[in-house]
Amino acid sequence: MIRLRRLEEKDWPAVWSLMEPIIREGETYPYARDMDSAGARHMWVEVTHTQYVAEDEQGNILGTYYIKPNQPTLGAHVANCGYMVAESARGRGVATAMGRHSLDEALRLGYRAMQFNLVVMTNAASVRVWEKLGFHIVGELSGAFQHPTQGYVDAYVMYKVLAD
Amino acid sequence: MIRLRRLEEKDWPAVWSLMEPIIREGETYPYARDMDSAGARHMWVEVTHTQYVAEDEQGNILGTYYIKPNQPTLGAHVANCGYMVAESARGRGVATAMGRHSLDEALRLGYRAMQFNLVVMTNAASVRVWEKLGFHIVGELSGAFQHPTQGYVDAYVMYKVLAD
Repeated sequence: MIRLRRLEEKDWPAVWSLMEPIIREGETYPYARDMDSAGARHMWVEVTHTQYVAEDEQGNILGTYYIKPNQPTLGAHVANCGYMVAESARGRGVATAMGRHSLDEALRLGYRAMQFNLVVMTNAASVRVWEKLGFHIVGELSGAFQHPTQGYVDAYVMYKVLAD
Repeated sequence: MIRLRRLEEKDWPAVWSLMEPIIREGETYPYARDMDSAGARHMWVEVTHTQYVAEDEQGNILGTYYIKPNQPTLGAHVANCGYMVAESARGRGVATAMGRHSLDEALRLGYRAMQFNLVVMTNAASVRVWEKLGFHIVGELSGAFQHPTQGYVDAYVMYKVLAD
């Protein structure tokens, strides 16, 4: 069972533990690979709108995601989200559960669409999850991501309309 | 003759005079239509990397643009620019001159590509200029811009590779 709830102050150490290896690896998000806990907290919590965690029945944190407007005022009806799943919890549907939850939450918060700006092409698992949840690849950005081992790789813009 | 140079501290009042009607109109950029001079200065100057003005032979400011990284560290080799042309200077090639200058500057600054995230579809003049300068529409974002008179309109992601 995966339970989704709002991220609370007390969750940060556990959230940072799952984020740190993903940031150090640098294969899926553009964040500086040497980012520290304060930097991560700034970009994941302080400059976003709402944050969530996914946990198991024992309260172990399996993943986290945020929602924020993708653009200022006249583009603020399009949501942007970021998601991270603990390495130890891969393959259990955590990303899918967070994705579904985020789509419901975005609608509830009044957003009309959701956009991912930089889905790294080599991150095939993520592309699959987002396509399963109804996102479309609307653009391909040639060489837009500097992969630590593969060099400059392409990234996708993915988009899903929530409300007509 | 249109001369391009770096924006200086003393230019701000003239730059704000040309920006204000464009922001108030709200048809091309997502910025809050009631943004004041300090807010505009923050988003155009303080959070960007480099700023420029276009001026005529008498030193009248005709336009302004900025360059900044479009994403954090691992995506920071892709430039993002914003451009505004004074209403009184439309039709004189100011956007094209700034566009060409920005492509040269971006290369000089070490960027490998340039991306526009939200080119409003109804802004046909801009789309034409960017296509003329070698940008491609790589994505269409359904209803991503809230136009003040036309409601939710589509916007394009446009992209140009600068270095291979």
